[in-house]
Amino acid sequence: MSAPSIILSHPQLGENIGAAARAMKNFGLYDLRLINPRDGWPNEKANHLAAGAADIVENAKLFDSAAAAMGDLHFILATTARERGVAKPVLTPAKAAARLHEKVAAGVKCGILFGGERSGLDNDEISLSTEIVTIPTAEFWSLNLGQSVMLLCYEWFRAIDATPPERIDHGPIAKPATREEMVQLFAHLEDELLKSGFLYPPHKETPMIMNLRAMLNRVELTDQEVRTLRGIIKALAHGKFRRPAPPHA
Amino acid sequence: MSAPSIILSHPQLGENIGAAARAMKNFGLYDLRLINPRDGWPNEKANHLAAGAADIVENAKLFDSAAAAMGDLHFILATTARERGVAKPVLTPAKAAARLHEKVAAGVKCGILFGGERSGLDNDEISLSTEIVTIPTAEFWSLNLGQSVMLLCYEWFRAIDATPPERIDHGPIAKPATREEMVQLFAHLEDELLKSGFLYPPHKETPMIMNLRAMLNRVELTDQEVRTLRGIIKALAHGKFRRPAPPHA
Repeated sequence: MSAPSIILSHPQLGENIGAAARAMKNFGLYDLRLINPRDGWPNEKANHLAAGAADIVENAKLFDSAAAAMGDLHFILATTARERGVAKPVLTPAKAAARLHEKVAAGVKCGILFGGERSGLDNDEISLSTEIVTIPTAEFWSLNLGQSVMLLCYEWFRAIDATPPERIDHGPIAKPATREEMVQLFAHLEDELLKSGFLYPPHKETPMIMNLRAMLNRVELTDQEVRTLRGIIKALAHGKFRRPAPPHA
Repeated sequence: MSAPSIILSHPQLGENIGAAARAMKNFGLYDLRLINPRDGWPNEKANHLAAGAADIVENAKLFDSAAAAMGDLHFILATTARERGVAKPVLTPAKAAARLHEKVAAGVKCGILFGGERSGLDNDEISLSTEIVTIPTAEFWSLNLGQSVMLLCYEWFRAIDATPPERIDHGPIAKPATREEMVQLFAHLEDELLKSGFLYPPHKETPMIMNLRAMLNRVELTDQEVRTLRGIIKALAHGKFRRPAPPHA
């Protein structure tokens, strides 16, 4: 279990402890440590908000000081939004995640320390930490505790996640249409449009066809979608329930 | 106001609406839209959880369908964790943020659509959206609504944030020590250690000095810290309250 430990110092709301546990499990962190939670421990609201991460809440370890909570760890990131002027490196969450992965890869046990909702970390806790991480924000800088934990856990996971940035969810069967399928679709559509009188007047026929083909190319159709569109063209042009055109149309 | 709109469809808990508003303000998004919130509107718990983002909650717009809520927008990202097999692009949050910035730069009004806590978005809502964003997770994929909104808002802000990944928070006065200050520190320390008998036996003197210099270089001292360390050396060696060494030491 080499993911960083999450250490919450003097957390006030069980809801935030539960939300932190849930976020940890979402992103593959498991070791939760609590320093003097205000409302005692265990806490029913923490269990409730943890949802599927009840195991993390149940296995949370209780400590009575920051020094005790981090005693067996080597590298501690302290999260704070305030400037402290204490000559420590201040990292963004992304840089912090990279640093944590470097440390863990070198066999170093890491923790991320968060202060309580009202007043954050005190100077003594900061002084026991190795580096500082600050979440950049727009105008309003006060982040909810559960949200802050989530964000650091997310960055930890993001740094090792191999999900492709973009893919098409075609479902299990469909494949992108071949050019041959596309050319047959163009021919089918253009033939019916010519017969219907849509491609008129003649000098506009070519630009109209070019625009239609550009539109159909842009959607990157699947083979299934090409079959569906050809069925639609056929139904619109010759469907068995299709009424004859009115005499003066 | 070109940041994306956040659209919550059938949200159940006021707490999550409030948390979403707070996260929006943290990361510079302002337009909150609600489709049929379960407990009606306004909602006292939303106001409470919003903390400093009460203005976003107060200005939230209410709609009775997804089509109405997104009617004036052009590009809609639907957030869902489930595979839908609907042949839409599926983006990571980071890619989604890049896409949104491209669209906004081109004058396109964007929205991000989130489903309610229990069942997420329905297929009709997905079908009205342009692309899909899925937050990658470890084993436990069910994310809290407020957390999901936060993460997308964070990625939106992260893509334009210019915070340096790492800097040293020296406070307003201190500067990194010059090499001259460091060389003087080395000379002062090594002179006192030689006089104290610490650098002994003689064949270990050079390696001990090399190790001490490496340690002092590694901390990247400030000018103030160099002065402090020189004061410490002086106090330890010659401090006015320093007791004479015991006779048999």
